[in-house]
Amino acid sequence: MTLDQTRLPFEQVSIELDSLESCRHAIRAMQVRGAPLIGAVGAYGLAFGLRRDASDDALRQDFAELLASRPTAVNLRWALQRVADRVRPLPPGERSAAAWHEAGVICEQDVACNRAIGSHLAALLREQALRRGGDPTRALDVLTHCNAGRLATIAYGTALSPFYLLAEIGVPVHVWVDETRPRNQGASLTAWELGQAGVPHTVIADNAGGLLMMQGRVDAVIVGCDRVAANGDVANKVGTYLKALAAHAHGVPFYVACPSSTIDRDANDAAAIEIEARDGRELSHVSGRLPDGTTAQVQVIPDGSAAYNPAFDLTPAALVTALVTERGVIPATRGAIAALFAEH
Amino acid sequence: MTLDQTRLPFEQVSIELDSLESCRHAIRAMQVRGAPLIGAVGAYGLAFGLRRDASDDALRQDFAELLASRPTAVNLRWALQRVADRVRPLPPGERSAAAWHEAGVICEQDVACNRAIGSHLAALLREQALRRGGDPTRALDVLTHCNAGRLATIAYGTALSPFYLLAEIGVPVHVWVDETRPRNQGASLTAWELGQAGVPHTVIADNAGGLLMMQGRVDAVIVGCDRVAANGDVANKVGTYLKALAAHAHGVPFYVACPSSTIDRDANDAAAIEIEARDGRELSHVSGRLPDGTTAQVQVIPDGSAAYNPAFDLTPAALVTALVTERGVIPATRGAIAALFAEH
Repeated sequence: MTLDQTRLPFEQVSIELDSLESCRHAIRAMQVRGAPLIGAVGAYGLAFGLRRDASDDALRQDFAELLASRPTAVNLRWALQRVADRVRPLPPGERSAAAWHEAGVICEQDVACNRAIGSHLAALLREQALRRGGDPTRALDVLTHCNAGRLATIAYGTALSPFYLLAEIGVPVHVWVDETRPRNQGASLTAWELGQAGVPHTVIADNAGGLLMMQGRVDAVIVGCDRVAANGDVANKVGTYLKALAAHAHGVPFYVACPSSTIDRDANDAAAIEIEARDGRELSHVSGRLPDGTTAQVQVIPDGSAAYNPAFDLTPAALVTALVTERGVIPATRGAIAALFAEH
Repeated sequence: MTLDQTRLPFEQVSIELDSLESCRHAIRAMQVRGAPLIGAVGAYGLAFGLRRDASDDALRQDFAELLASRPTAVNLRWALQRVADRVRPLPPGERSAAAWHEAGVICEQDVACNRAIGSHLAALLREQALRRGGDPTRALDVLTHCNAGRLATIAYGTALSPFYLLAEIGVPVHVWVDETRPRNQGASLTAWELGQAGVPHTVIADNAGGLLMMQGRVDAVIVGCDRVAANGDVANKVGTYLKALAAHAHGVPFYVACPSSTIDRDANDAAAIEIEARDGRELSHVSGRLPDGTTAQVQVIPDGSAAYNPAFDLTPAALVTALVTERGVIPATRGAIAALFAEH
């Protein structure tokens, strides 16, 4: 059971994930999104499949079907592979139970990972508050882009995790929420989940962050990431790069919440990362709530005008203050990333 | 009679400007927008006021009322001042006719000014095409933000003027049109007017420009301006600054189309320019066309989430390649700006 995220923030519709088919559909239709959540749903999808037929043939076919639901999601392949590797050596009769167990472990590890990232980020923010000086009861202003929150994970989120942890201990934080065009994940998902948790926040146009940093109204920027290259270059939701440039220009710390599973050491640098161009309709049509309470899509670009919609952009490592991983806070450098993996 | 720009691109509705009140409302509600057009409408507004009451008191009060409809727009103050200076020495009986005449001159001069700015920009773009080398038939890719086009002026526009002039002589140009949240002037107005003129263009999210510049897909950026300080700092639609940072990072020329009337020599630098915060509803509600062809507003931010909407931002002079004025192309420096006015 999970929320259909395509219906947020105006409708809270639960969907029952009780079969391989429902898991596959939820991923493909973006009812669930966010790398960790997609991985978990994929893992449970495979477990559902094995409950029906635990043969080698079925395992192969279920794996391929689930993977095809979102071929670019690195985390989905990782989670499916992990379950498949776990059950393949077992006799068919034991596979379904083992797959359930493995999917559960994936979820538990995600929660622990996010809590660790949140703790590291919370510590960085508290240091930042001390450095800033002045009134200690004044909330820290943190800007975030897109949604790397609870909704993208099993719990806590990555980039939003410190806000929930700081709220638990009563440290005042205010979040500037980038709308995040064209899919508006900031305005719809981040604003919604911060609101549900009672975290003070204000939605801004993606265009506004540069001015706010110039005015000294942003103490830190925290974003998630879709993929980090071996040299520390960061692929994340389109628009991240512009905020990194502005943060750099104004000496504002720019932190990337980065589970170590998101680091792709096979990608030498940003040049190795392909940018997915998505349907221009995501830009030309905007979903929202009509005055009568129903939801609808309105067209915002004239007929005959083309729309181009790259979904991600690339932030050079030099603009990143730190990668905040579950294993600790490291500089976005080739050496530090290699060391992070050498230690484990 | 002018187009109600809040209804574009899906409806072409004319509004009658026949009183000080209708002119003031049109400016305040952004039915007319763009510094030169606001100036012209303000000038006619004052002329309408004087037709009713041409006393010194009425002149003072009408001036103040019209100016308050858009405090950031230096061009509005300039146009109102020009009309007021022209009529104040006259006996009340001659003031209304003189104001009408002066408003007409303002309009004629705007057209000549825009054509001159367009010629200068067109020359800069052709030089840029030569510098780039390669296939001379490949269109130049120029990014623009907001709408400094025909719709913002009496004719031609400022930032968009070179595209119309180059189209007239068959030089291929392709325009990346920033959507320009929150009011979507790019997606609605710039895309509409370029489409009407047959200029090839593609709408992008405001978030996408940094990636496109990194990928070498932008040959130049051209924007308009609401106000330029004596040192060359530029106030323009929010989001301009982020594009200037990215252009600077990638060596892309960043040109500001700048009628000399937009230069405010009383503003020492950006710190002297007040930023207007507009209603958060411009961000939380998006206008567009429903599938049935009617227009509607949809809410895109959850109830209970705040929205903050600064309308402009400030681009430091150091990021501006050149100010393109009707009198010529000058660097964005205090000296060059002083010299521009000393010569006249």
